[in-house]
Amino acid sequence: MTTEELKSLFRSVNDYPTPGVIFRDLTTVIKNPEAVAYIIDCMYDKYKDKGLTKIVGIESRGFIFAPILAYRLNIGFVPIRKKNKLPAEVVEESYSKEYGVDTIAVHKDALEPDDVVLLHDDLLATGGTMVAACKLLNKIGISNISLDFVSEIDALGGRELLKEYGPVESMVHF
Amino acid sequence: MTTEELKSLFRSVNDYPTPGVIFRDLTTVIKNPEAVAYIIDCMYDKYKDKGLTKIVGIESRGFIFAPILAYRLNIGFVPIRKKNKLPAEVVEESYSKEYGVDTIAVHKDALEPDDVVLLHDDLLATGGTMVAACKLLNKIGISNISLDFVSEIDALGGRELLKEYGPVESMVHF
Repeated sequence: MTTEELKSLFRSVNDYPTPGVIFRDLTTVIKNPEAVAYIIDCMYDKYKDKGLTKIVGIESRGFIFAPILAYRLNIGFVPIRKKNKLPAEVVEESYSKEYGVDTIAVHKDALEPDDVVLLHDDLLATGGTMVAACKLLNKIGISNISLDFVSEIDALGGRELLKEYGPVESMVHF
Repeated sequence: MTTEELKSLFRSVNDYPTPGVIFRDLTTVIKNPEAVAYIIDCMYDKYKDKGLTKIVGIESRGFIFAPILAYRLNIGFVPIRKKNKLPAEVVEESYSKEYGVDTIAVHKDALEPDDVVLLHDDLLATGGTMVAACKLLNKIGISNISLDFVSEIDALGGRELLKEYGPVESMVHF
């Protein structure tokens, strides 16, 4: 498989979730095992020598590839979830969305300040959720962060916002 | 690792989410790569000769192990999500929860009637969500279903409800 072939597997849905938006649907990618293997092989090659100690995925589409890569690299997986979903003591971070405020959380004891973290989500759009996730990790004292996405909507400029937190990688650009 | 050692890695949180409930927290398991490898090895051995064609995971904790197993078995992963989260045409199923009604959905074109499906979630409690997931697959015409969980709260009796839909497997019993 090539990255162009991978890109062609995304389903484009017009006017979702709002008029004028083209939604890039990952479900047509993840039902294709060759595409998943290609994505994981590329991620593995990119990160295998980076000394990562944890992979952190953002609920819920970020839970799909991050655990597979953690499994391949034989390191732990840590979920960042929406508010009130984690049962033990958490650190929280709120951020503005188009309609209102969202809060994400991570267990306080899931990470250590000296962890080397790959922070993964499926899609980089405006970058708002990922900035909040970076601030969440910073609150725990973690500064060694790499940011990883399967796809990126280049025109939304999320990459610019994220550069101060760590190196940013995406496989597919729309 | 043994199943008893795996069981000891779950964090028990008293009175979560409501007084009197002991919540069995999986996050302390998934940050341990040996535990994840043990779970996946056991799942792989259990299902490798069953002729599975798709693994279906239920949002969002069901997204953690199901994609890893799909990767190991080299078959597609299909997400069942909460209402209004999937962008293309869906089949939906509603079910009663303690406080109100929930609706789950799957993309209509993600599965075929002759698919052999492993339906996975992290926890079998009352079984309400999983019954709805089975009905969802039945609506698409799928009858060859196996049901798989990492852990099960035996006293809640969810297994009894599920038996009519397919064989039920859980690794850890509380």
